[in-house]
Amino acid sequence: MDVGFIGLGNMGAAMACSLLKAGHKVTVYNRTRSKAEALAGEGARVAASIADACRGEVVLSMLADDHAVEGVVCGEGGILHSLAEERIHISMSTISVALSERLARLHKEKHQTYATATVFGRPEAAAAGKLFVVAAGPVKAIEKCQTLFDAMGQKTFVVGEKADDANLVKLSGNFLIAATIESLGEAVALVRKSGIDAHRFVEILTGTLFSAPVYNTYGAIIASETYDPAGFKMALGLKDIKLALAAAETLNVPLPIASLVRDHFLSGLAQGQGDSDWAALARIAAKNSGL
Amino acid sequence: MDVGFIGLGNMGAAMACSLLKAGHKVTVYNRTRSKAEALAGEGARVAASIADACRGEVVLSMLADDHAVEGVVCGEGGILHSLAEERIHISMSTISVALSERLARLHKEKHQTYATATVFGRPEAAAAGKLFVVAAGPVKAIEKCQTLFDAMGQKTFVVGEKADDANLVKLSGNFLIAATIESLGEAVALVRKSGIDAHRFVEILTGTLFSAPVYNTYGAIIASETYDPAGFKMALGLKDIKLALAAAETLNVPLPIASLVRDHFLSGLAQGQGDSDWAALARIAAKNSGL
Amino acid sequence: MDVGFIGLGNMGAAMACSLLKAGHKVTVYNRTRSKAEALAGEGARVAASIADACRGEVVLSMLADDHAVEGVVCGEGGILHSLAEERIHISMSTISVALSERLARLHKEKHQTYATATVFGRPEAAAAGKLFVVAAGPVKAIEKCQTLFDAMGQKTFVVGEKADDANLVKLSGNFLIAATIESLGEAVALVRKSGIDAHRFVEILTGTLFSAPVYNTYGAIIASETYDPAGFKMALGLKDIKLALAAAETLNVPLPIASLVRDHFLSGLAQGQGDSDWAALARIAAKNSGL
Amino acid sequence: MDVGFIGLGNMGAAMACSLLKAGHKVTVYNRTRSKAEALAGEGARVAASIADACRGEVVLSMLADDHAVEGVVCGEGGILHSLAEERIHISMSTISVALSERLARLHKEKHQTYATATVFGRPEAAAAGKLFVVAAGPVKAIEKCQTLFDAMGQKTFVVGEKADDANLVKLSGNFLIAATIESLGEAVALVRKSGIDAHRFVEILTGTLFSAPVYNTYGAIIASETYDPAGFKMALGLKDIKLALAAAETLNVPLPIASLVRDHFLSGLAQGQGDSDWAALARIAAKNSGL
Repeated sequence: MDVGFIGLGNMGAAMACSLLKAGHKVTVYNRTRSKAEALAGEGARVAASIADACRGEVVLSMLADDHAVEGVVCGEGGILHSLAEERIHISMSTISVALSERLARLHKEKHQTYATATVFGRPEAAAAGKLFVVAAGPVKAIEKCQTLFDAMGQKTFVVGEKADDANLVKLSGNFLIAATIESLGEAVALVRKSGIDAHRFVEILTGTLFSAPVYNTYGAIIASETYDPAGFKMALGLKDIKLALAAAETLNVPLPIASLVRDHFLSGLAQGQGDSDWAALARIAAKNSGL
Repeated sequence: MDVGFIGLGNMGAAMACSLLKAGHKVTVYNRTRSKAEALAGEGARVAASIADACRGEVVLSMLADDHAVEGVVCGEGGILHSLAEERIHISMSTISVALSERLARLHKEKHQTYATATVFGRPEAAAAGKLFVVAAGPVKAIEKCQTLFDAMGQKTFVVGEKADDANLVKLSGNFLIAATIESLGEAVALVRKSGIDAHRFVEILTGTLFSAPVYNTYGAIIASETYDPAGFKMALGLKDIKLALAAAETLNVPLPIASLVRDHFLSGLAQGQGDSDWAALARIAAKNSGL
Repeated sequence: MDVGFIGLGNMGAAMACSLLKAGHKVTVYNRTRSKAEALAGEGARVAASIADACRGEVVLSMLADDHAVEGVVCGEGGILHSLAEERIHISMSTISVALSERLARLHKEKHQTYATATVFGRPEAAAAGKLFVVAAGPVKAIEKCQTLFDAMGQKTFVVGEKADDANLVKLSGNFLIAATIESLGEAVALVRKSGIDAHRFVEILTGTLFSAPVYNTYGAIIASETYDPAGFKMALGLKDIKLALAAAETLNVPLPIASLVRDHFLSGLAQGQGDSDWAALARIAAKNSGL
Repeated sequence: MDVGFIGLGNMGAAMACSLLKAGHKVTVYNRTRSKAEALAGEGARVAASIADACRGEVVLSMLADDHAVEGVVCGEGGILHSLAEERIHISMSTISVALSERLARLHKEKHQTYATATVFGRPEAAAAGKLFVVAAGPVKAIEKCQTLFDAMGQKTFVVGEKADDANLVKLSGNFLIAATIESLGEAVALVRKSGIDAHRFVEILTGTLFSAPVYNTYGAIIASETYDPAGFKMALGLKDIKLALAAAETLNVPLPIASLVRDHFLSGLAQGQGDSDWAALARIAAKNSGL
């Protein structure tokens, strides 16, 4: 398929590569052009502008936050003003439910199609085309893009036709990862202070009821205390927890564990740990235990 | 092996059966004798007293709580006063770290061997001999009893030589299960209030990063809201969280998520839900969201 | 002094009356004109527009929230576009620190003077001219308006020259009131469940270490469980806690008690209690205790 | 009156002195005899044993914790075994509701009278005879001892005839003090990080809605950050919060703020702050904010 890809950070670049490897024709755009040029060697065409990346059948965007997405979509020369009618914008960024709702409305007014395909997985998974894709939006658009999702991910889950549902699922998932990190961090602080080896403890957990990727990944990081360099920065973890809390607030849903995690992230940032991996929640738990 | 088994509740009866099926000679004792007699048909010998169940090479105990264990071990005619020197007591109950420490000391004074083998798994797993066993204590005793653990469980993890370490791992594991339930309950309340199907959401979680038994089991219960009859009662969940908090308190380790879960369990009990499954934490989260 | 007063809700109307009683010449404006006309009998001049209320030496505004303030100040025909150079705008509303910072900047660009004078006290105190005023802004402006503050309040505290400092103090104060309500609610649930009379308990508190208006006021409400009609609605309490959390978030300051209170307010709203007094936090605590 | 006084710590010694100053005949006993002898100069008779201090009409006890009280009352040669029938034991220590209930039962079996008179106030207040006394127990006993309470305190509140009610009120009061410290600590961290002077902030609070001794005392300590030496140690604060939580647990009452405060106290102890004043909760809040 002939597609555009906007946003070439750690995740985006790896995802665009997966599309190229699968044989798609990909026009890439990034604000800092050098990141786009780095993909030329993989066969990507480098777009000179956002509009230039909107000439294919589908444009995918994978950006850092609401602010970046708003700029790229609604700004002068943005997707909204460049995409032809009927063409599809697949928003893959982790953004607020509120913004996603708004984008759906704006695209509709322009007779463009808006769908979402959020992803679970760290950069390694993105590089291997092993992400999990959670998509939502008009059935036809999702079906048409399935081949793209297959290139980037190992499995796709379709939530429904309301595009922002995929955003809420993504935010809820990230909340659950953060909750897992925090709980693990507390439990590891406890057993460690009692003299039990943290690796042994994590091995028991992942060998029994907790044999899931999230425990394997974060159990290993926490047991070995390797929080730097970050796979996913604490500052971004805070951003996502805030988005989950904001979505919940709109619906009058309290999320006490998210509140607690948010407070610990704030402490982390206040103490200069914003660039550490968000698993460093466990380092805060350890410090609070006198370890 | 010729063993005694004391405590034939849901879990204990299933575990004793597993031992019988594996060909061990099992003498069973239960305060309410009828529960012991029910196992006679499976080939168990029914003990008339605790002492009677202590005549084999090993006696295993699986009781409800500290109080019951203290009675059975230290009480008149208890294990402590009945077991021959050098013989082994394997304590499998979920009890406090403090009591386990004390039992180790008391058994040592009597030149008896004390070890622990706590288990993860609900009654179904116990019936299938598919528990996970977490053992701790003197190497020789653990090695000797490995054949027993193999009969009851699918895998054994040895933590170390300090017997109470297995109790702490068990309590930490139950804390992590409760934390998972609470987090899941909050997340499900959120997506449900937004109109997303809870089953679909759980399917996405367990199909991606959260593909572990604990999410499968509790995700299903929470999505279908089937909290009664209980697999594991909220009142017992509260008991275990209190034991985890007590162990942590001794070491000056704060466990903020355990504190939060404890408070929600207390609310549940105050509102008459003590006999519901501990997964009903999710029902409290739903109620707090106005669902 | 010849002043304008914009915003005639429960608090604003009472405050404008206090100014009139003290002999000031007050031109009042309210979006719903009838509320302004109600004050004509007290001697107020009714303004036809915001601009009309900006012709005096000082214009005071007392509005519901950020949105209302932004409209009245920055909107078409708003204070920003109506106030003469050098003239003073005293913002008395409970608004975000961020908006107050922005207003300071905008007024400065227009060579107008911006200062804040937030108030503590419920409508009864406003009617009696017994508010506490917490002011911040340029020294000269504060000094000039002291006579106005004296008319509305029993005491004025000047925080400093940064106008938004008074907003932060106000939000922090409201956070402390909410924390007091929540703590009192929990303690009263405890003693009540034990059979102790709540009034007697509150009497002991306010007769000893807790002899402050905040305990007198909320202790009485909680002991008698009279949450309706509201003196200050739970929905507004939530608004203010959110503003406190937002201000703290900007500075990376966790406020765990504010997070907890926010979650309880959300529960309250989810369960239809948004119009009850914010002291109904205690009703939630009671329910959670099975009372 | 001819009374015995057992337990001469900071508080007890000051209280015994107040009794002496008021003209009562006081026989003092302390495990470490030197503390008793120090009061001989004030006119106290030094008892050689607990029994020796039980020969008057009333014996008062003011001890560190449950363990000490249990030893002094129930131990060999303890009050229970020394006090004549009909004589009165006034328990003034901050102990668990459960122990107080038990003491009432035990004394009753011995036909002795048991009542409680817990006190609010720091050592300075005790020295000045300005404590607040919260008493509970048989009316006659309370009436008879009123003259003693008047000597030690500025005011007496009688809760009722169930002796342990005074213990619950005391624990609830201490919980509210700790909640106040924590809230103040969080708010002060916030305003301080924004550049507002902490003393000014506390002055505003105590000059308005928060004009109570608890805010004056702890506001001053927190603003000036003078946590050492302690007026009341964090380790004791933790003890009292645990007693409040235990009493609440028995009644299935969650106290989320007490849970949060407990966790912060544990962190404080884990980090070696157990001997600092319990107001050092505010130092933890400051650290968590990056101050």
